[in-house]
Amino acid sequence: MEKEYCMGFKAAGLPAGIKKNGDKDLGVIISESSANAAGVFTTNKVQAAPVVLDKERIKPGICQAVIVNSGNANCCTGEQGMRDAKAMAKGVAKEFGISEEMVLVASTGVIGESLPIEKIKDSMPDLVKSARSDGFQDFAEAILTTDTVPKIIVREGELGGEMFKVMGIAKGAGMIHPNMATLLGFICTDVQINSKVLSEALNQANKKSFNRITVDGDTSTNDTVLIMANGMSGVEINNAEGQNVFQDILDEVMVSLSRMLVKDAEGATKLVEITVKGAKSDTDARAIAETIAGSSLVKTALFGEDANWGRILAAAGRAGVALKPEKAEIYFNNVLMVKEGKGCGPEAEAQATRVLRESEFSIFLHLHLGNGDASVLTCDLSIDYVKINADYRS
Amino acid sequence: MEKEYCMGFKAAGLPAGIKKNGDKDLGVIISESSANAAGVFTTNKVQAAPVVLDKERIKPGICQAVIVNSGNANCCTGEQGMRDAKAMAKGVAKEFGISEEMVLVASTGVIGESLPIEKIKDSMPDLVKSARSDGFQDFAEAILTTDTVPKIIVREGELGGEMFKVMGIAKGAGMIHPNMATLLGFICTDVQINSKVLSEALNQANKKSFNRITVDGDTSTNDTVLIMANGMSGVEINNAEGQNVFQDILDEVMVSLSRMLVKDAEGATKLVEITVKGAKSDTDARAIAETIAGSSLVKTALFGEDANWGRILAAAGRAGVALKPEKAEIYFNNVLMVKEGKGCGPEAEAQATRVLRESEFSIFLHLHLGNGDASVLTCDLSIDYVKINADYRS
Repeated sequence: MEKEYCMGFKAAGLPAGIKKNGDKDLGVIISESSANAAGVFTTNKVQAAPVVLDKERIKPGICQAVIVNSGNANCCTGEQGMRDAKAMAKGVAKEFGISEEMVLVASTGVIGESLPIEKIKDSMPDLVKSARSDGFQDFAEAILTTDTVPKIIVREGELGGEMFKVMGIAKGAGMIHPNMATLLGFICTDVQINSKVLSEALNQANKKSFNRITVDGDTSTNDTVLIMANGMSGVEINNAEGQNVFQDILDEVMVSLSRMLVKDAEGATKLVEITVKGAKSDTDARAIAETIAGSSLVKTALFGEDANWGRILAAAGRAGVALKPEKAEIYFNNVLMVKEGKGCGPEAEAQATRVLRESEFSIFLHLHLGNGDASVLTCDLSIDYVKINADYRS
Repeated sequence: MEKEYCMGFKAAGLPAGIKKNGDKDLGVIISESSANAAGVFTTNKVQAAPVVLDKERIKPGICQAVIVNSGNANCCTGEQGMRDAKAMAKGVAKEFGISEEMVLVASTGVIGESLPIEKIKDSMPDLVKSARSDGFQDFAEAILTTDTVPKIIVREGELGGEMFKVMGIAKGAGMIHPNMATLLGFICTDVQINSKVLSEALNQANKKSFNRITVDGDTSTNDTVLIMANGMSGVEINNAEGQNVFQDILDEVMVSLSRMLVKDAEGATKLVEITVKGAKSDTDARAIAETIAGSSLVKTALFGEDANWGRILAAAGRAGVALKPEKAEIYFNNVLMVKEGKGCGPEAEAQATRVLRESEFSIFLHLHLGNGDASVLTCDLSIDYVKINADYRS
């Protein structure tokens, strides 16, 4: 018997010849019945054709399938790009026997080259035919670019004695930054939920997850997070209690995916949570946390396992918000490194260096100026990051 | 006979034992007579002790000497840091027989460690004694951190048949970003000029030079640019014509220093000018130019000699200002790569790749939205950048 990831959803992934290395590069998710849907898209002024298409198609709040390719972003490809995006949707619609407006599209990869649309069309019958309820691993592989591992997570919730599921699949690796979705994220759930409430839940979860991670400060032209709810579990989200239960599970799925994304970021060897407390406001705290998380000097020091707190404080100082260095405290996990703006000496430094050797840890900055707090996830900046991104197209 | 860099100025540099490797790390510039002076300092909220001291001492618009150490930033060092900064100035004042208020101080290096002030004090008599009119090469070496070459430039100007000089010395390498000075810059001139006019001239030149370069987006706690004008040439700047002549020479010195700084940036292999034209406003153009210049994805592509124009357009798209990708043109030097938001094909790409193999070139983005333009200097992000900054303190 097929393993079922989430009731009423099927998926597939296969190599269509878009990637030069022959890896899987075309995937589809199909719901047995029409699903309520919502999306979050890039705020970049340069938007790929599939993003432009999806933003229009998702307006009625329903969809039934999503087709995704990796290896090519279908961005800066002009009118041909839009024709190709529509052709991808049409291919799925035709094979599966649904309206093409019910199919969303996502692409990721190199910007500025036209899709090899004939290869994609040729693969479509096989792709749709091979969709199965246990096909999500193949799908998760087919959407990867420089990621090293597929990222899937399934969580179960319970409401009024009935079980429901939320499944998330994502790819990221580089070009991930706050105020954006991540590159691509697809959430399937079998609850029954109104698409407006679903959209709010997605935005809520997004704030706590994909919008607080940073890899290299760049944001993509293709970022898309889609959620589909097909109601197949029979569990209905129709009151505040239900919404809370559903939100908790959705948050958990999306936060877990976020951590997986940063952990698998290009060249990353460290997953680091930057938490700022005691800022004048949450906005100030967020500005400081993001500036630290995005600082090349901080990130190279993390890679070098160097407890260089001076760079952390210097980054905080250029965030453009209130800060009194003489009040600042910095912790690496529970090791107090800086008190009243000054280093705590060689013993603290030795302890902090041990923290830095771990693959996951926290940096905590207390400003003692107010009640604002924020936290973001980041990774180190490694030699491999440069290698990966210097060689990406070749 | 000693070579004279700039009339009435002497300098020296020697190893005082602050740097572990025994390189020169302490330098002084002394003017024979009191000089009119002005400064530009970091806007970072975390400011090193010497910056705090100089901002106060330069208020009357005069000074006679500046003492500089490398290897230690004297930042986040509390009250001891201020005592040490004052002690450095006092040491020069005592040896040279001037008031300590006439001595400015600058430091650069690791943040958060106290200065080895006894070593500095012990070196002071030798340092001041060895100051000579041809000692600027030693000084320029003594202020370096990860820079690989000292940076000195001398330019002569002529006003009413009389000659004057402007000399600039700088160090930079990393942590350089617009809206800041650079790390350390010292300008000496033998013109006679009122300190208010001098300050305006410095700000003007700064906008065209140190404020339009970026290496890694980080800004320092110690950034300081000082200018001293001792009047020894007898050339008086007292009208608009004189100001223009002086401004031109000062601009030339500071722009040349800026290029030298970016060229010698940590790990840099390329010096790249990013010019944006046709934005809705100069401010918009500047925002886009800086976002491109600071993008890790663009900078790694430059290192990889990959004409990845999609990353340039994607960076422009996240600058938060108006942009219509379908109107955008991108040139690498004079090679048109992108027209109406689409790539110009493999032949253009091949030509652009040849441009990218050069060590200096321009990237030009025309938005066709208005008359705003701006340009900034940047460098690539290399494997060596990461190595240098991962290992900096060890």
